Amino acid sequence: MSKTKFNVAVVGATGAVGEQIIGLLEKRDFPVDKLKLLSSARSAGTVLNFKGQEITVEEAGPDSFEGIDIALFSAGGDVSKELAPHAVRHGAVCIDNTNAFRMDPTAPLVVPEVNADQIDKHQGIIANPNCSTIQMVAALKPLYDSYGISRIIVSTYQAVSGAGAKAINEMLRQSKEVLEGRDANPDILPVGSLPVKHQIAFNAIPQIDKFQDNGYTLEEMKMVRETKKIFGDEDIAVTATCVRIPVIYGHSESVYVELKNDYELEEVKQLLAESPGITLVDDPAAQAYPLATDAAGKNDVFVGRVRRDLGNARGLNLWIVSDNLLKGAAWNAVQIAEIIAAKA
Amino acid sequence: MSKTKFNVAVVGATGAVGEQIIGLLEKRDFPVDKLKLLSSARSAGTVLNFKGQEITVEEAGPDSFEGIDIALFSAGGDVSKELAPHAVRHGAVCIDNTNAFRMDPTAPLVVPEVNADQIDKHQGIIANPNCSTIQMVAALKPLYDSYGISRIIVSTYQAVSGAGAKAINEMLRQSKEVLEGRDANPDILPVGSLPVKHQIAFNAIPQIDKFQDNGYTLEEMKMVRETKKIFGDEDIAVTATCVRIPVIYGHSESVYVELKNDYELEEVKQLLAESPGITLVDDPAAQAYPLATDAAGKNDVFVGRVRRDLGNARGLNLWIVSDNLLKGAAWNAVQIAEIIAAKA
Repeated sequence: MSKTKFNVAVVGATGAVGEQIIGLLEKRDFPVDKLKLLSSARSAGTVLNFKGQEITVEEAGPDSFEGIDIALFSAGGDVSKELAPHAVRHGAVCIDNTNAFRMDPTAPLVVPEVNADQIDKHQGIIANPNCSTIQMVAALKPLYDSYGISRIIVSTYQAVSGAGAKAINEMLRQSKEVLEGRDANPDILPVGSLPVKHQIAFNAIPQIDKFQDNGYTLEEMKMVRETKKIFGDEDIAVTATCVRIPVIYGHSESVYVELKNDYELEEVKQLLAESPGITLVDDPAAQAYPLATDAAGKNDVFVGRVRRDLGNARGLNLWIVSDNLLKGAAWNAVQIAEIIAAKA
Repeated sequence: MSKTKFNVAVVGATGAVGEQIIGLLEKRDFPVDKLKLLSSARSAGTVLNFKGQEITVEEAGPDSFEGIDIALFSAGGDVSKELAPHAVRHGAVCIDNTNAFRMDPTAPLVVPEVNADQIDKHQGIIANPNCSTIQMVAALKPLYDSYGISRIIVSTYQAVSGAGAKAINEMLRQSKEVLEGRDANPDILPVGSLPVKHQIAFNAIPQIDKFQDNGYTLEEMKMVRETKKIFGDEDIAVTATCVRIPVIYGHSESVYVELKNDYELEEVKQLLAESPGITLVDDPAAQAYPLATDAAGKNDVFVGRVRRDLGNARGLNLWIVSDNLLKGAAWNAVQIAEIIAAKA
């Protein structure tokens, strides 16, 4: 591109992730020349603020991308599938926050702390991994490099914001109903498009996204497949149980890893503490460990409860927490955009 | 004892578990001759109802157990340590719901579905395991018998009722505060007697009970040690991450087991479905799986999300849910009492 300022499009500008992307572009002082905000017909006409300037959201269409250098998509997989090729045709680099291209072999799947080197290999589309995968692989990268990883067994504690603004409202509404002694009347979760609904207030729902034929949910299979692709290592055995809990922002994960080589616990903690993008919060005596409420609004991945499996010298337990809308989505995408901009 | 009716004492009668025990003794029509309700000085004088009869709670002391056949303790470890020996001296069999005697080699640690045969070996005290352990070993027993178990990796999603009535009130209060835009002002959790408090409303706290020198919490170490003792198998490798979430009743657990032998998934499901005390809820197409809100108030252990680790042919994921105050405490204790009564 050989540029110092960029025309940027945000597709899904009025959504939960789009809003965070716009905020980060401003906060990080991203070198924006023109910012184009795009959405569905329903939300077009909304006026949003960027650096004190009012921008009217336009309906996204095949011809919305003329002159755009970088397009950040987070309006759902169908929109990305339809419009990203048009953005590429107009010469834009697409950073896609949906599941549309993650397993496409021509699209790099990037977490900058892990595989920033893949960005250069793009053919127009760079995929942003799923939120639950991003924070896990970011935290595991220093361990992967130092010891190797043979297997990962992860159980998640995921916030409702991962299912969008409607799910947040649903959880807050249900909480109020139950506190006042009424029925929760579930209407959105676990999956808006499926017939059965379950109460999320004061509950834990072991279903995120649809079930696959193998008995795993799509969310669980994303963690399995994306982890292998991001590390470029098909030999890592990954198994996941993904659970929605009544938290607004911030996914927590109980991650068990088996390393390929022996390790010293203090060295593991030091590696984590020194890694960019990671904050180690691990002081049992002070009852300090990562919490979703503390991670909310922050870009980092927080890691704590680091301890050796007493029954397996190469086994290690970690508690990994991050804001699912930031590092899990918007911040990871903006990080990729910053790397592209720096190299242009 | 050679009796058909029994004098029963409930120590901690006014607590959350004591209340459930009294309810179960009535509901199960336990052959009670006289029921003695005991508590701390603070709660003594409270009048409780049992089968239409009003019983005044008395202060528990060393001489409260004269003529008592079966004493059910759930008033905290210190009370059990002090008073259970006196109950034994008076000829009572103690079923202790606290951590006081669980690892005592002279006290059987019993989950009837797993090791009812140990009951006969008691020397006056039978220990009831920790709630999070009970539901896990009950669900794993049929798999242990059929295939053997080499390792268990468990992450829990535990209800606040496990920390007592105060923690329930705290969580409900905090939820209301946060919904109304105020600070949560944490006051009880994670551990009442420790200085640091964390918000539980809309959060996940990876600390239940105090930290041990090895970096694990006592709750996590209970799961490790008790599982080995209940199965009578020191070779099972167990590692646990115990997490409190904003649920009122019902602990959920994401349990990964590695079996010693090959298995067929359908056979595993059938074994679980046929096991006493277990209800299999596992129909992904119908979005059916165990939920804390469904398990609350029921005695069974609910198991679902049964699926093979795609990276390990002997690995198996399970989602295990049960009411922590019932099978996790009161019901397991009353089950033991029923077995003792039937053999008397």
